[in-house]
Amino acid sequence: MNKNLVRYVLGWVLVVVGAMLVLPIIVAMIYGERDYIYFGAISAACLLLGYISSRFKPKNTQMYVREGYISCALTWVLLSVIGCLPFYLSGQIPGFTNALFESVSGFTTTGATILGVDRQIEELSHSMLFWRSFTNWAGGMGILVFMLAVISQLSGQSNMYLMKAESPGPVVSKLIPKLRGTAGVLYGIYGGMTLIEFIMLAAGGMPIFDAITLSFSTAGTGGFSIKNAGVIAYEGHYYWQAVLTAFMFLFAVNFSVYYLMLTKKFRQAFKLEELRWYYIIFFAAVAIIAVDLTRNGIYPNMFERLHHTAFQVATYISSTGFASADFDLWPEVSKSVLMIVALIGACAGSTGGGLKVSRAIVLVKSAKRDIRKILHPNSVYTVKIDGKSVKDDIVSSINTYFILYMIIMIVSVFMLSFDEKMDFTTDLTAVIATFNNMGPGLAKVGPTQSYFEYSVLSKYVLIFDMLAGRLEIIPFIMLFDRECWKNN
Amino acid sequence: MNKNLVRYVLGWVLVVVGAMLVLPIIVAMIYGERDYIYFGAISAACLLLGYISSRFKPKNTQMYVREGYISCALTWVLLSVIGCLPFYLSGQIPGFTNALFESVSGFTTTGATILGVDRQIEELSHSMLFWRSFTNWAGGMGILVFMLAVISQLSGQSNMYLMKAESPGPVVSKLIPKLRGTAGVLYGIYGGMTLIEFIMLAAGGMPIFDAITLSFSTAGTGGFSIKNAGVIAYEGHYYWQAVLTAFMFLFAVNFSVYYLMLTKKFRQAFKLEELRWYYIIFFAAVAIIAVDLTRNGIYPNMFERLHHTAFQVATYISSTGFASADFDLWPEVSKSVLMIVALIGACAGSTGGGLKVSRAIVLVKSAKRDIRKILHPNSVYTVKIDGKSVKDDIVSSINTYFILYMIIMIVSVFMLSFDEKMDFTTDLTAVIATFNNMGPGLAKVGPTQSYFEYSVLSKYVLIFDMLAGRLEIIPFIMLFDRECWKNN
Repeated sequence: MNKNLVRYVLGWVLVVVGAMLVLPIIVAMIYGERDYIYFGAISAACLLLGYISSRFKPKNTQMYVREGYISCALTWVLLSVIGCLPFYLSGQIPGFTNALFESVSGFTTTGATILGVDRQIEELSHSMLFWRSFTNWAGGMGILVFMLAVISQLSGQSNMYLMKAESPGPVVSKLIPKLRGTAGVLYGIYGGMTLIEFIMLAAGGMPIFDAITLSFSTAGTGGFSIKNAGVIAYEGHYYWQAVLTAFMFLFAVNFSVYYLMLTKKFRQAFKLEELRWYYIIFFAAVAIIAVDLTRNGIYPNMFERLHHTAFQVATYISSTGFASADFDLWPEVSKSVLMIVALIGACAGSTGGGLKVSRAIVLVKSAKRDIRKILHPNSVYTVKIDGKSVKDDIVSSINTYFILYMIIMIVSVFMLSFDEKMDFTTDLTAVIATFNNMGPGLAKVGPTQSYFEYSVLSKYVLIFDMLAGRLEIIPFIMLFDRECWKNN
Repeated sequence: MNKNLVRYVLGWVLVVVGAMLVLPIIVAMIYGERDYIYFGAISAACLLLGYISSRFKPKNTQMYVREGYISCALTWVLLSVIGCLPFYLSGQIPGFTNALFESVSGFTTTGATILGVDRQIEELSHSMLFWRSFTNWAGGMGILVFMLAVISQLSGQSNMYLMKAESPGPVVSKLIPKLRGTAGVLYGIYGGMTLIEFIMLAAGGMPIFDAITLSFSTAGTGGFSIKNAGVIAYEGHYYWQAVLTAFMFLFAVNFSVYYLMLTKKFRQAFKLEELRWYYIIFFAAVAIIAVDLTRNGIYPNMFERLHHTAFQVATYISSTGFASADFDLWPEVSKSVLMIVALIGACAGSTGGGLKVSRAIVLVKSAKRDIRKILHPNSVYTVKIDGKSVKDDIVSSINTYFILYMIIMIVSVFMLSFDEKMDFTTDLTAVIATFNNMGPGLAKVGPTQSYFEYSVLSKYVLIFDMLAGRLEIIPFIMLFDRECWKNN
């Protein structure tokens, strides 16, 4: 491995993080908060170190797959640690592990929080709340993607390896022809949609600070909010919650769709198989839950039922993890539909988490193919998406992903079982909620609860799960693979 | 599909079942119970119908893969229905669904019971209890395997297709060279080991009827017992429980090992990779649980702790499902170790259930291979077991199996969530326990509880899971595949 190149990339990451930290300084100035000291000091340190490191450009700037994965994994570790320092140094979040948990939860767009028990979310300063929500936004599209959109100092296919490591997913349709510029287009769409959401919320009378922070966490499908009660705090504000529902739904769509729409290829955009299944899953889930809530007589009328159901399905399918209601009180069928929707997750190429709709399609189709093969061993069947056949090695890598996904979940639940304060439902849903970057689980980590009670060991297990889930496992595993670190 | 051939095979199955039903008639005679009427009538009907059907031999007795799967799936449906009739007609188990649940649970060697609430196990007559335990024994090795051991009326490779359908598993080591006779050898080992267990129990002073029935259900790794309290009823009888522990452990070993030992190939037998991992998993689980029990101060001394731990791990790894203690009261770590052990399951080619140790090995190794492939895309890596490479199509079929396994589990938990009386832990562990043919789960289906409270719909979901789990999914899916039923 070209360690010098990794060092160089991390240097640029420090510059980007240092620049991002200027935003909360501005917020601190506006609200007259002394926290600008912490943000300022960390920002200055990042910029200085990053500047020095980026001056020493390695001779060989050609990146390969292993440098891509290792740079990406280390970027996220670095990001998590730097991101937690303001919380930790200011003492606004008690203890390093808690601060790190909150930072990782932010950047990975999980939205799980340890606040609300020992300390209320409202006790944080405006600049800290801003930074907390901003991590959701920055993590949603990815830091390396941002870096590539701004600077371009690497040779040849380096950018591709970095982008692939940070947001892999099954590349079913390569829609954007040239890679140079892709990062810019993605961030353009991302920023534009975030802005539209902010305008719609603010125009509906939501306080500006709430509108900015909620737009950030919706866009990243993160789910942090600035109230202890989450989105339940906006109870009765149907318009605001409906805007959130719509944007959670939209940010979980494959960004290729928006690119196609921008280039006026509407027919191609709406014919995508993943999108079609995404709709079907969404509306089927809404229908089942609405019937279940009616049957159990929850909510006084159909409007409220559909409102909360659509909100909740959108928040689960996109892995945002907002709560407009304490769904832990909903009947079992509704809860299990939400869990299944969360396991499947959003479209690939979106900011959402989970297994991803296209992976689920490939898994089901490859299982079908293998059953066909049993009946007709000599025939050739291929798995197709959008009419094109998916290569065998992609099918097998998705199978692998699914196996790793299950192994990590089982091992994590086992590790959490050492925590005697928690029960099985809590542990299982905590793992599902963090690994899929969703946020709240059920029972003791339900939507109105907190991850605070978990032990330090358990919190590090969950931190691992959030990072592994966000980077879709492989880059994180490479970090522990000796062969990957070997010199060329 | 050659439907006439399937009809012919089912005819022979009826003859076999009719003959098996003679055993409880004898038991009824010995204990002077009037239940011989029910067994006699059903036996006579089976023998008559079977005799007629087996007279009309189809012209083409060459079986192919689809006839194999369909015959196998229908055999098990037929078996389940006939097996439940004595319980149902005699009224000793209330209601057809309950009787069918008990029969399916028996033949699939699950050992889940609906008895113990409305009706106690001890209220059943001796002949019914005998039949109930005997279904565990017959289902363990398989009915078609038994049929093949006794009769051989089919052409060419037909036997192989039937045996593969009934006990597929990954055929990692083809140890027994000629297939003709294999069924006989397997039943020979099976019967011999059951007899040794019976002698050891009876020699230790266990009542004869208890010893016979427990030997049946240990051999099939079924887990039915003739007491409401299960094996807890033999509390303090350490020798009896230790014999059960040893035989649960032994019946979960690949029968190839015994075959190799019979042919004096000891070195080859003990070098099998699956066996080595089976040992490692077993002893690692015992060690972790023993430490966990000590830490929590459960049981007064180390002897009792190890005794109960070994018993419980053996019962879970072999999917027998006996309980020597109410492990639902054990600490969380112990419970999650037991759940993981149950998910992995026994060795392939044994009577035990679960995913199977060799499948788990292949899954982990294939995941490892695919990670290697990411770093070196052009190199060729193969998955090896016992030093021999496993063919790609076997690896991919194991991947498929795992995907189907997970899909069926998730859908089943969803279906059970409609049952309002039960909670999430109960539903999840009920599905794991039935699909892996284990028996008791946790919470409301824990070792001292019963499946009685589930609704009729839920019971049919669990019946499906037990059958799909016993036949390792594929034959059962073929039953619902229109293409499989097409005429040639």
